[in-house]
Amino acid sequence: MPSHQARFTLSTTGHGDMHDITSRVADIVRGSRITTGVAHVHNVGSTGAIATIEFEPGLQHDMPAILDRLIPPSRDYGHEQAWHDGNGHSHLQATWLGQSETVPVGAGQLVLGTWQQIVLLECDVRPRKRTIVVTVTGDADTQ
Amino acid sequence: MPSHQARFTLSTTGHGDMHDITSRVADIVRGSRITTGVAHVHNVGSTGAIATIEFEPGLQHDMPAILDRLIPPSRDYGHEQAWHDGNGHSHLQATWLGQSETVPVGAGQLVLGTWQQIVLLECDVRPRKRTIVVTVTGDADTQ
Amino acid sequence: MPSHQARFTLSTTGHGDMHDITSRVADIVRGSRITTGVAHVHNVGSTGAIATIEFEPGLQHDMPAILDRLIPPSRDYGHEQAWHDGNGHSHLQATWLGQSETVPVGAGQLVLGTWQQIVLLECDVRPRKRTIVVTVTGDADTQ
Repeated sequence: MPSHQARFTLSTTGHGDMHDITSRVADIVRGSRITTGVAHVHNVGSTGAIATIEFEPGLQHDMPAILDRLIPPSRDYGHEQAWHDGNGHSHLQATWLGQSETVPVGAGQLVLGTWQQIVLLECDVRPRKRTIVVTVTGDADTQ
Repeated sequence: MPSHQARFTLSTTGHGDMHDITSRVADIVRGSRITTGVAHVHNVGSTGAIATIEFEPGLQHDMPAILDRLIPPSRDYGHEQAWHDGNGHSHLQATWLGQSETVPVGAGQLVLGTWQQIVLLECDVRPRKRTIVVTVTGDADTQ
Repeated sequence: MPSHQARFTLSTTGHGDMHDITSRVADIVRGSRITTGVAHVHNVGSTGAIATIEFEPGLQHDMPAILDRLIPPSRDYGHEQAWHDGNGHSHLQATWLGQSETVPVGAGQLVLGTWQQIVLLECDVRPRKRTIVVTVTGDADTQ
């Protein structure tokens, strides 16, 4: 079983809502029985970002704040002039941060620092139901 | 056949030229006969970025515009003082956005949202011929 | 042997210290005997970034400088108000740039441009000992 894929959904409340999804990903890694390899975590859709970060209240506030400072909401984006859905900056933010992340798997576990979690960050301006696809590739324990 | 690699080239017109390469990548995934796994898309070279984004004219304009606003062209970069090739910002932009992207493969298809495409964004200041390397790893359908 | 994992450590001097780790990663790829696939390079910990960039003195200066200009050191981050360790910006910078990178492997070699290296960039404010985990997945030469 060198490859295993599963998905889960979660609901967000809108821009800046950050969810720690590490344990969800770890469960899928465990279910894969892959011991050495990588886990790829992907948000289906263009306005939600996947990242690794220390998941704590300070950074939960700071990350969306800096995104909005550097790539602010505005009606002047070309995307807005075509679609008028108020989320031009959401697209740009989620692409800058990235819509997927890959994490090593060793001894059947995610290899992360103590203060390093996998998160979904909602960049869209309204609540969304998100689908996260996790793909684990590598060597399975065959014993 | 747990791993498959292919490459293709394309020509860009210079800074901000964005190409939707999703169908090129999908063709390589199909050719790999891998049904469950991941597709890794890599630009060979430091001044072209690979990203996932909604490919539409508004964002085709907005993404290079915000890159140039945050990381502007300038002769003051250390890179410029050594190389004088006018593309210091190109290097920084392409590294911020990333020179590769990984996308899940499920049921032999790329797993992407309807409005989520894989793009090459030219960050260099002159036309370039780009080489994109696509590597698909996972399980092949053995039937 | 479709998957191989190894790690190495290196010491950094603090913020902006950039290390070319391409040859370390290439050694691990060679040791894996994987000929076609991908190499995933991951920094364990939230304040060190992995990126691909042309490794030359100009950009070694420019990349940390632009990070500090866009995401400046400040005591105003929420992270600071809780932890007082002066590295709120370090977390944000390393997450923006990313704490891992994936590079193709072809003919048993990393597929990179001549001016495209894999680097660790220290984003933390003090010297750190970094652990880099490299995972190679793909097809091994069985001859």
